[in-house]
Amino acid sequence: MDERLKKQLDFALEVDKEKNIFRQTHLSGHGRNENDAEHAWHMALMAYLLKEYSNEPVDIAKVMLMCLIHDVVEIDAGDTYAYDADGLKTQKEREDRAKERIFSLLPEDQKADLIALFDEFEAYETPESKYAHAMDNLQPLILNNSNGGSDWKEHGVTSSQVYGRQSKTKLGSEKLYQEVVDKIIKEQIKKGNIKE
Amino acid sequence: MDERLKKQLDFALEVDKEKNIFRQTHLSGHGRNENDAEHAWHMALMAYLLKEYSNEPVDIAKVMLMCLIHDVVEIDAGDTYAYDADGLKTQKEREDRAKERIFSLLPEDQKADLIALFDEFEAYETPESKYAHAMDNLQPLILNNSNGGSDWKEHGVTSSQVYGRQSKTKLGSEKLYQEVVDKIIKEQIKKGNIKE
Repeated sequence: MDERLKKQLDFALEVDKEKNIFRQTHLSGHGRNENDAEHAWHMALMAYLLKEYSNEPVDIAKVMLMCLIHDVVEIDAGDTYAYDADGLKTQKEREDRAKERIFSLLPEDQKADLIALFDEFEAYETPESKYAHAMDNLQPLILNNSNGGSDWKEHGVTSSQVYGRQSKTKLGSEKLYQEVVDKIIKEQIKKGNIKE
Repeated sequence: MDERLKKQLDFALEVDKEKNIFRQTHLSGHGRNENDAEHAWHMALMAYLLKEYSNEPVDIAKVMLMCLIHDVVEIDAGDTYAYDADGLKTQKEREDRAKERIFSLLPEDQKADLIALFDEFEAYETPESKYAHAMDNLQPLILNNSNGGSDWKEHGVTSSQVYGRQSKTKLGSEKLYQEVVDKIIKEQIKKGNIKE
């Protein structure tokens, strides 16, 4: 087999490990914890379904691919919970090392392309990045809401923490922020599942 | 919330159930059974990585979306193992009912779009469909191969069954069929993991 194809298949096999990286979010129906691969699939599909609500026009293929790869680094770095203050301090360094190791499995051109896409996502600057981040925030929110806010309750999450994270959702989609996110948060605060 | 957005979110929450539909394939490292959402994520990412090997040029956004949704019907119809002769007889009827129910959660225009895409995948006629099917076949093959062919062994799968399914992989990609699929099958027959 030629070297290029071998590298591509090695990468394809390596990313299989994302299915073993579990997040704090639980599946609907009070299911088990969700893993990174499932989360990425769900985000990419939601990105397509809800693209009319992006603040700016987006290249949807780019957004979907961004969603599919945005957590690849967690194979080495693990999942850092959005409200884990200590973990967040070392997250960047851990993820940078992982990014270099994992994308280096690919041929040089694809390594460069995917690192550029990963960095674009992280930088939060382009329309595609902002909209993909909105999906990254919205997807666990609708699962958690369907479970009566049990993930927030379990971790004693406060309204300022949730608003701190979700305020960025409006950079990608004002409409989804106003019509979905803000309403859900207000309701969950009222029910006492998110602490004031 | 407006009716259109509500329908889109209802669909987004419904498809979460794909994460509970388990396949016969096992994750690499002799892991647990894989579920449909993980499989779809892996296929979509592989489709992007390997697109240079498609026999014909493809619209990669369309292929990725096809991969993401191709198993949605299994929420109701369950996974039908590729070598389950009895299950295969009733598969079409079960999946048609599921298709109608699940995509009807969406606004009419998106229901029509996704059913058209689903049907296009099933019809095996366009370049995108053929290439997406090649990914549907290749993805479990590389996992199974990484586990020493244990899924074939467990089910007593024969070479004619594997070739029957995988011969269609070449409709999407001659290169991947010749360089990867055929070589893996021959090796696994030699090792006795696929029966002659």
